[in-house]
Parts: sequence; structure tokens; C-alpha cells
Amino acid sequence: MESKFYNTHHSAFGSYFSFIMGKEGAKGGFVLNDVKSPNNNIYIGYKKKNENLNLMPYFERRERQEDQFVINEVPTSNEKVGTVQVINEESISRELNWASDTFKTGDLEFKLITAFKEVKNPAEMTDNEIKLALLPAIFGEISFDNTSGDEEVLLVFGVEGVGRLLSETTNNELLGGARDRRFGFACRSEDSIEESIGWAVPDYIAKGERSSNKLGTEVALTMKVPAGTKKSFVIALAAYREGCITSGMDASFGYAKYFKNLEEVLEFALEKQDLFFSEAETRDNELLASGLNEYRRFNVSQATHSYYANTELLINNKNEYVWVVNEGEYLMMNTFDLTIDQMFLELKFHPWTVKNNLDLYLSRYSYIDSVKDIHGNNYKGGISFTHDMGIGDMFSPKEYSSYERENISGCFSYMTSEQLLNWILCGSCYGINNDYKWLVNNKEIFVKCLESLKARALNETGIIDTDSLRCKAGTEITTYDSLDISLGQSRNNLYLGVKTWAAYVCLQNVFQKLDMKAQADNSCELSFKVAHEISSKFDEEKGFIPAVFENGNNSAIIPAVEGLIYPFIINDLDAVDENGRFKAFINILTKHTDSILKPGICIDSTSGGWKLSSTSNNTWLSKIFLCQVVIQKVLKMDYKEQWAKWDEIHAEWLTNSCSELCAVDQVYSEDGRARGSRLYPRLVTNILWL
Amino acid sequence: MESKFYNTHHSAFGSYFSFIMGKEGAKGGFVLNDVKSPNNNIYIGYKKKNENLNLMPYFERRERQEDQFVINEVPTSNEKVGTVQVINEESISRELNWASDTFKTGDLEFKLITAFKEVKNPAEMTDNEIKLALLPAIFGEISFDNTSGDEEVLLVFGVEGVGRLLSETTNNELLGGARDRRFGFACRSEDSIEESIGWAVPDYIAKGERSSNKLGTEVALTMKVPAGTKKSFVIALAAYREGCITSGMDASFGYAKYFKNLEEVLEFALEKQDLFFSEAETRDNELLASGLNEYRRFNVSQATHSYYANTELLINNKNEYVWVVNEGEYLMMNTFDLTIDQMFLELKFHPWTVKNNLDLYLSRYSYIDSVKDIHGNNYKGGISFTHDMGIGDMFSPKEYSSYERENISGCFSYMTSEQLLNWILCGSCYGINNDYKWLVNNKEIFVKCLESLKARALNETGIIDTDSLRCKAGTEITTYDSLDISLGQSRNNLYLGVKTWAAYVCLQNVFQKLDMKAQADNSCELSFKVAHEISSKFDEEKGFIPAVFENGNNSAIIPAVEGLIYPFIINDLDAVDENGRFKAFINILTKHTDSILKPGICIDSTSGGWKLSSTSNNTWLSKIFLCQVVIQKVLKMDYKEQWAKWDEIHAEWLTNSCSELCAVDQVYSEDGRARGSRLYPRLVTNILWL
Repeated sequence: MESKFYNTHHSAFGSYFSFIMGKEGAKGGFVLNDVKSPNNNIYIGYKKKNENLNLMPYFERRERQEDQFVINEVPTSNEKVGTVQVINEESISRELNWASDTFKTGDLEFKLITAFKEVKNPAEMTDNEIKLALLPAIFGEISFDNTSGDEEVLLVFGVEGVGRLLSETTNNELLGGARDRRFGFACRSEDSIEESIGWAVPDYIAKGERSSNKLGTEVALTMKVPAGTKKSFVIALAAYREGCITSGMDASFGYAKYFKNLEEVLEFALEKQDLFFSEAETRDNELLASGLNEYRRFNVSQATHSYYANTELLINNKNEYVWVVNEGEYLMMNTFDLTIDQMFLELKFHPWTVKNNLDLYLSRYSYIDSVKDIHGNNYKGGISFTHDMGIGDMFSPKEYSSYERENISGCFSYMTSEQLLNWILCGSCYGINNDYKWLVNNKEIFVKCLESLKARALNETGIIDTDSLRCKAGTEITTYDSLDISLGQSRNNLYLGVKTWAAYVCLQNVFQKLDMKAQADNSCELSFKVAHEISSKFDEEKGFIPAVFENGNNSAIIPAVEGLIYPFIINDLDAVDENGRFKAFINILTKHTDSILKPGICIDSTSGGWKLSSTSNNTWLSKIFLCQVVIQKVLKMDYKEQWAKWDEIHAEWLTNSCSELCAVDQVYSEDGRARGSRLYPRLVTNILWL
Repeated sequence: MESKFYNTHHSAFGSYFSFIMGKEGAKGGFVLNDVKSPNNNIYIGYKKKNENLNLMPYFERRERQEDQFVINEVPTSNEKVGTVQVINEESISRELNWASDTFKTGDLEFKLITAFKEVKNPAEMTDNEIKLALLPAIFGEISFDNTSGDEEVLLVFGVEGVGRLLSETTNNELLGGARDRRFGFACRSEDSIEESIGWAVPDYIAKGERSSNKLGTEVALTMKVPAGTKKSFVIALAAYREGCITSGMDASFGYAKYFKNLEEVLEFALEKQDLFFSEAETRDNELLASGLNEYRRFNVSQATHSYYANTELLINNKNEYVWVVNEGEYLMMNTFDLTIDQMFLELKFHPWTVKNNLDLYLSRYSYIDSVKDIHGNNYKGGISFTHDMGIGDMFSPKEYSSYERENISGCFSYMTSEQLLNWILCGSCYGINNDYKWLVNNKEIFVKCLESLKARALNETGIIDTDSLRCKAGTEITTYDSLDISLGQSRNNLYLGVKTWAAYVCLQNVFQKLDMKAQADNSCELSFKVAHEISSKFDEEKGFIPAVFENGNNSAIIPAVEGLIYPFIINDLDAVDENGRFKAFINILTKHTDSILKPGICIDSTSGGWKLSSTSNNTWLSKIFLCQVVIQKVLKMDYKEQWAKWDEIHAEWLTNSCSELCAVDQVYSEDGRARGSRLYPRLVTNILWL
């Protein structure tokens, strides 16, 4: 990778906290119940005897906070001189892997470990399994190779944004720093380790002193590495929040039932550290063995880190676990059009979280609407689902999202049709692949979904041509809310058309499994109608299907193929086979793709990266990754060495262009600058590369 | 008052939250477990039919947050035009009173009500009394006089920094906005009131629309005032935090045991609003009837608001109430050299909080030290107390403050002698005036304090001439830590000398009450020695006593007289009488004062305001107020019309110069600019004017 100074979230499953690190300067630190960096200093370095303190460049000089107090402080006894030196950026190497992030320079190494793994439904675990699965902690490991040294070396690990020493509340069993009860870091106490607290703590350490200013908000650990040895120190980094933390539906963190406070979390983490290190190594090795090129390995790693940073496992008042994935900078909860993209990772590692979301959408965030045609005539609608479940730990009222509003025809309007498709598709993938019993229990819901989907096409083609009456004077949109009309309008929309086709294919499969022949046949019939209708829109001259079947729209869009992923996931490979039952349709979509993956159309002429729509320079990496999987694995289109070039460009966007903002989804296609959707979980569609 | 645009905290007893308002621009809003303004918008205004929306200037235009999402939002049906107009600053009047803050313009009035009163020890109250006393809520009242109007008027009250509608969680019984579970505002639901939520909510209201964008962080209420009527609407503003919120000693908010959540607090507040309005009116009337000039009334009001903003009543794991006053921007808890200054208010309204602090200092934050002379020889010391109990809701370990550090001779060194004096003086005032039983229970402690105080003077004069060994290579300081040496050094210090005298006078009174004749006589003897020694330092030529009896110090300091307040408080008026037993001493301190209250010495030549030290331009309003009381009420010195001129200058410092920072203690004497100690509780020494 060309760039090494970019921020990454380091987080634990469902604990909605991150330790952010990677961008040079004061850009990192702990964040809890959010994903935005606090822009704090991180101190990682070493000091040899009679030399200066060398720190990696993850900090900046602050205005001296002491100056506002002190007019007459007399420097005391210690006469050693020593200053803080910033380690040359060039000398630093970094390797982000799936579950680790390693920073090296010379004999110094610092590694962050964020183990993740298959997690069973906690409702089916023992208490000890739950503690291991929900532990709100990650790890750091700082090492120095002093085997050829003839003097003791002092290692330093410190963080700004804390304010108390952990020795004080653990009877000196842990050493480290914490911010009140909320977050902190600690290692197991040993003689060679000391705590410092204060403002500008490195200034003291550089002079060989120990800072003990408890008004300060920086805590550092110093650790001795004797001459002739190599030594590593493991540091747990954790967060904790007790009590009810949500409104609308009262809930607390799942882990809070099993750990009393931050200290207990840190102690448990350090006790079980080996398990976490070994799990992380397993993940890292899996990714290295995947055969993916370095850019894809990076993209997968950065996306997975960002996904877990947004996860929040709650327990509500009825003692039910509630799974929440928060929407990056926007803070919306379980945004359904993200859930469907994150499903691919969840089905692999913890499919019960998909079920958890689907069930809550059904019980609390479903509604029955009517629909209208473009002339404003009203018709029967059916069941659908909200866009999200709330924002910023505030659950929205039953049947309503925080996002959707009436009387709008663009961003912030209703996504009724798309969310109906999302429930059908997520439900089908989860039910068919993972949980037949759940399918059986929900058979009536699938019937209702089928009826609702049919009700949204007043024409004979199966293509949705209505808008929910909830829109009032407005019209429905799709998840591509901030792109141009080519992807934004839901009515007569190519992207949503293919997703509608996929929903009918999936419903056919569901009903077949459930031995519901009439509904299966009906779904099958509609899948053909939709495929036929979409195919008929192919413009031979231009070589592609226009994005919207209205008003002479002429945009070319890559996500035309997005919907093909779902038959593939439920293993109905015939549906997506170039010689299968939708042969003509699949061939047309292949032609469509081949025509538009060209500079000036859906390849940006400046950057060479992918543009989702030929008529918008707003492009979304999560959807690029997803469509790449469809094009490469489902349609089996071979762009040879071009793939790695594209991968490099997209990896570059996630590093250089968006270096401060961790993973960013919405970027400008000409240079990859962040446009929106910062700190986003959705990018994890790229798990499908594996 | 010349200025009306300054911030003030509006807070409830012990709930450590504030609604900040008063400075023009976006400078106010809710803050919880801190006192710093979040710099949010506050919307207060009205709209007449077919006219623009008129808002008071407590907001600013933000960059449009919608712009990052929207590229194609089509404005819908509503064709009314309307914009937001800022009401002319000149037309606004403001009156801050002891328990209210009233903003008026034309027919519009907005009033914030922060009732406070005598509060009994909650351990001795019924549950209902506790709920009334600890309720974490204040009130706003918005009124419009539309009696001569012939069209309905729409009133607006809105706040930035919230994110959900209270109708949603209260079955429409309350209308208002909240930030998750933490804080919010609400009024009782009625037909004429509507909620709006969004970004830039006034833009919608100005157009006659209702904003319903739940991604936004502004909530406003609109309230209809029919033609020909005058109408008021009461809004409760509240905060809530459950669970353990401290570290070091686990504790939660006292009110959290009695209220389940924010909604319950708001409902209870609105149910009992009349009680609070009437209490506030009583306080306001008391202050108006006090005979104080308008500047003093302002200074008292601003100080009292800032004091309550810093109060935090906790319950610990042993079900004991723990009273905490936080130290403004510094966040230190129960800083003892502030406790003694805030005692005057607490003894009047809730003396049990003084006892609560004294007891916790004794049980957890006392220690036994040794002392050293200037040559470094060690001697027996005795009991003393720490500077504070922790910082930012993090209780420090037993026997240690967060502030004090070794090997320092200026700011951040130990205050062992001064804190010993503080416990003696607070304990004497509380015990003698309020609680004989407590005196009896603590008689051994008073003996230990006497012994410890005696041990700190190795000479025959009683003047402290040692430093605690806890300082190591450093030396002790006084509360005047950031002034120059004239007030900063504790050894041989005039200010501390007079405080030592006061401590012996108080101890004599305590021991007399306890029938402990030997100790009373001993204290009496020492009080004369100290008075004699201090008197002997009077420099006839200069007309004052130099601040430090060392190294030819030549500073003139006003707080020479500070200690005289304590004999006055315990009603030993003879001790401070010009013809009493310390006649010579009192006359010398009067002469001292008269000599230095002159421009160029302790009156700033530029501003005309008071300088605590002739050799520092750092001056502290809390101590100015306290010394004014001593000089005016105890020494009965008559500066005639000069008093009001000084009062006006000091009020001006608290308004213009420190307008954004609410109450500021440390200012530059030349112009009153804030220097430190922002948002401070200590200013409430001026309660003694009453």
C-alpha cells in the first residue's frame, strides 16, 4: 500500500466503542457510543538511557495547559536534559490485516489486536461464553528488540483523553489510565512498568521523570526492556457503560450484565488475552491465504474494522438481545438498506444478528400502507418496513424511522418499496441458508410480502410503478438517496427492477422450501415478467439499459446488476447462469455491464475508479465492491489485470483521500475525496470477495 | 446594568446540569456533568400571520447540514414566503434576579426560573420532600401580550443539541425535545402547541411549516396566542442520568433513586411548577428588598447561579448522600479552599452540606504529616486535609487530592497548612452556629487540629513557618496559587497569618462551648501571640503590613483582612471590634486597609477595580467580595459613594469582560478580562452582603 497514515477503528463485537489510530498528528483515541475521532494524542515510543524520547508521529504539540495556572513554578532537582523527538515518518511501516494493525520502526513494534470470530446467539451461550463473546475490549502489544542493546530501553504507551490511574482502583493489580467509568487501557502490574499522568506527559518521560499531575488528561505507561532482551507488553483497551442507554425502547449494553465495571473488563481481558490473540491470528491468516491481492486485503480489513466499530449489542427490558449496527457518522440505527449489505458478513460470522434485525423490523418497524399512481389515484398497498429504527441511541416510535419524511421527492423521502425488497431478500437469504424453522414461522409474512410487492406494480410487467401514500405529495426513493435521479427514484427504476426480480426469485425458492406451490408458481411467473420487462428496455444502440424507464432517462448505472447477488447467495445458480432459465436477461445485463465499464461512462476519466452512475460523480465504495463481486463471480466477466488496477485505485481512496475519516463510503469519483457516509459499516460488502 | 448580553447558568440544586443562556449568538444550551457551554442555538420569538419569524439574537446561522445529503430535493406545495428576522438587540431588556432571568422585547417575554431555598438534609426528609428538593429541573416561561392584536400570534421556543420528540415517549402528554436520556425540555400538551424537529427549524416555522426531520438536532415548540389575549406557556428544562457516574468512590445522582427517567422528572416538574415559581419569587423579592444597589444585586445573582450550576448531590454504595461542589472549568471536586468560601451560602440555605464535606474530609481525605523548616530539618506535624477530593467525577484515592504534587514551590504544590485552617474554620462556623452535637462528636478532632496547627509554627509567635514533608523538595502554597509570591507562599504569610489568628479565635470559642478549658486557654494565648506578631510587622512608613515576612517582601495585599470574617460569623464580635480584646491588631488592619485601597496600590489605576495584591494584575472577584464584606461590615470602614462605583466596575467585569464564560473569578485587574477560574462557584462569597 502506498499510504500508511490513515485512521482505522479498532473495536470489539457489539460494544460500540473504538480506539482510533493511524493518521499522523493528534487524530486518534477512544470514542464510546459514537465513531468520530476525539482527535487525541497517542504516544508510542522508546527512550534509551541518556538519549531523547523517540515517539511515533501520532501526536501533536498542544499549547501548554500549565501556563494558565503557573507563574512561579520553580523547576526542581532533576537536571537530566531530554526532549521529545518525532520518529521519522519514512522509517515507519504499517500493516493492516483483518484482525490486527501493526506499526513498526527499527526495533520498536506496536500492534493492535481486534479479534473477531463466529459468535453464537448469546441467548444460547453459557455465561462464560457470553463474557468472551461480548467483552468490550481489544488489545495492544508493544515490543522492543533490545537483544543487541547494552543499555536498558524504556518503552512508552500513552493516550490523551483519560484522567485517572487504574492502579488506584485495582489495588495496584492493573496499571493504566481511564476516563471516569467509561474507557481506559491497562496492563498487568509488574515491577518494570510505571504509570504517568498529566499534561504533556512525554516531556517528563523524556527528562527521565514521572509525571503525577492528576489534573492532566494524558496517561502513559513506561515499560523497561533490559539490555540483551526482546520484550513485549500486552495492553488491554476497553470501554464500559452501565444502565439504560437508549430512549424509545429502553436497553443497556449486553455486556453490562456480565461485567461490573471497566476494571472487571480489563482484568478479564488480560486474563484471557491468549484466546483473543489466537483468534486474531486465525483471521489474519485466513485473509492472507485468501489469494486476494494486497489492495483487496486492505479494503476488506479496513471495512471489517469499520463495521465492528458500528456494532452495538443491547439487552432490552424484556431481557431480549437487540442487535444494532449504527450508520457511521449519521448514527442511524439498523438502517435497513445497510443491513442488507452487511448481511453477507453477518451470515458468515453471526447469522442470528440478521434474524434479530428481521424480527425487530417485523414486530416494531413494519407498517401497512396504500399506494398511489403517478396521477395520484390510490390503491391497496401492503406490508413494508421503515428505513431505520432511530438515531443516536434514540429508538424511533413504532412503525416510523428517523429518516423518512412526507412531501419530498428526493433525499429523506420514504423507501417503502426498497425496504420491502430488503426484508424479502434478507429473510430469504437467512431463512434458506441458516434457519428453516424461522422460515416456517414466518410463512404468513412472506405471503404478505409477496402480496405487498405485487400491489406496488399496477402494470402487467411486475416493475414497481407506484409510490407509498406515506409520501403524500412526494415520491419514493432508493438507498441511493444522494446520487442523481438515475439511482434515486424508486418508480420504474432499473436498479430496483433487478432487485424486484431477485426478490421474486428468492420468494419462489422460499415458497418451494415451504411447499407452498401456488405462491412459488406466482413468484416464478413474476420473476419472468420482470426479467422480460427489464430486458426489453435494453437500448441496442447505446449498449445499455437506461437507469429509469421514464422521461427519456439516459444514465448508465453499474448497480443494474446488484440484485443478481441474492439468487447467488441462496445458491439458485441457475437463475444467474448465462445458460439458465433467465439466459436472455443475464446476457443482457452482461452486455450492459461491458458497455458501461468504460472511461467516460462508468469509469471515471480522471481517476480510473468506478462511477456507479454515468451522470454522477458521487460514487459509493460499498456498492462498487458488491457489484464487483457480481460482475466477477456471478457474471464471471474477466477484466484480467484491470481488476488489480481498479482495486489499487479504490484502496487509494480509502487511504490517502479519506485518511482522517477511517472508512468512507461516499466519495467523489474523480479523486476519492470523502463526500459523505464517513466511518461507515456498509463497506463490508467486500467480504464477498472471500 | 450597562450590559445585557452575558451568559448565565440556570441550574437546579445538586443536579450538576445547566441551561446556559444570555450571550448573543450560538452560545447557550444544555450541559450535563460539566459547566461549559455547548455553544448551541436557542430560539425564542414570535410570528404574526403573513409576517416573518422574529427571534431574539441567541442563535446564529449554521452551514446548512442538509446540503451534504440533498442534491435533488424539490420544494413542495407550501408557497407562503417567510424568513427569520433577528430582533434588534437594542430593543431587548434583561433582568437577572436571584432566582430568575427575564428577557423582554415588545410584547414578548421569556423568563427562566431557577428556584432555590432552604434544603434540609435529605436523610431527614420524606420521599415527596426529597423529590421536590432534588428535582433536576428548572423552568422557562414564554409569554406574549396579544390583547391589542387582531391576529393570532405564534410563539417559538427551541433549542439545539437535542434529537427526539417527547410526545413519542409520553403518549403525547408532554411536548418538547430531548437528547437521548440525558436532558430535554417540555411543556404539557395542549391543542395550541406543536413540536418541530430538524436542522434550521426556524426556517420552516418562518414559512408557516412544521419541520419533522428526525435526523436534526433542533427541537422547537410553537404555541398559539389568540388575538385579544395574553398567554403564557411554562416549559420545564431538565436533565437525568442514572447508574453509577463516579470512579474511586462509586456513586450515582441522588435524584436517580426517586425518578425513573427524564420524562418522569419533566412530568413531576410541570405538576409542581407553582411551588417552584413561588419559591423563586420569594428569593427575588428578598434580594430586591435587601437594599443592595443594582450592581451588588447583579453580582449576587450571577454568583448564586454559578454556584448551583456546580453542585452535585450523590448517593454512594452505602446509601450515604455525598455533597460535591465542582470547581468550574477545572472540575475538581469539593476543593477545600472553595468550600470555605461557599460555606457562607451553605450555612444559610443547607448547612448539612458543610457538615457532609467536613465529615468526608475527615474520613477519607485527612492525613498525618511531618513538617520541615527552611533548612530541611524534620519535625512532628499533625492532621491535615487534602486540597480536593478528585476531578471530573473521579474521586481521588484516600488521603490524596488530584491537585497537590511534590517537589514544587508554586502552583500545584501542597496546601497542607491552609487546608488545616479551612477545616478548623469551617468546622467552627458550622458547629458553633448550627450543630452542637457535631462539635461534641468531633472534640478529639478539634484537639488534633489545634496540636497540628501549633506544630506548624516552630517559632514562639504562632506564625506558620514550616512546610509539610509531603512537599519533599518543594514548599507549601496557599489558595492564591496563581497570584504572585505575595499571596502564594504559605510560610510567614500575612494572609495565612490572619487566618491562623482566626483559627485560634474560633478554636477558643469551640473549646469554650465544649467546656475544654485548657485547650480554650491555649488557643486564646496563641491568638494573642499571632495578633501581636502580625501587628509588629506593620511598616509605619509605608502604612501597611508586607505580604510575606521574608526576604524583604514589599507587596500590599487586601486579603490581609480576609480572616476577620470567621470570628464575625461565629458572633465573637469582640474579637473584631476596634475596642475589643484585639484592639491594636484590628486598628492596624484598618490602617493597613486604608493605606492600600488607593490607585496604584490595590486599586487598579486603569480600571479603578480592586487588586488583591499590589504586585499582581491577577485579581479574584470572590475574594474581593469577601474582603469588601470584612472592610464594610466587620471593620465598618466607610468609603461612601465609592462603594457603588467599585460595585459597578466589578459588575462590569462579570458582564462585558466575561460575557461568554458566565461567572469568572480570576480576571485581569486592568480591564476584567477572564484569566482563569471560569464558570466558578466561589463567587458566592457575596451572599454575605445580604
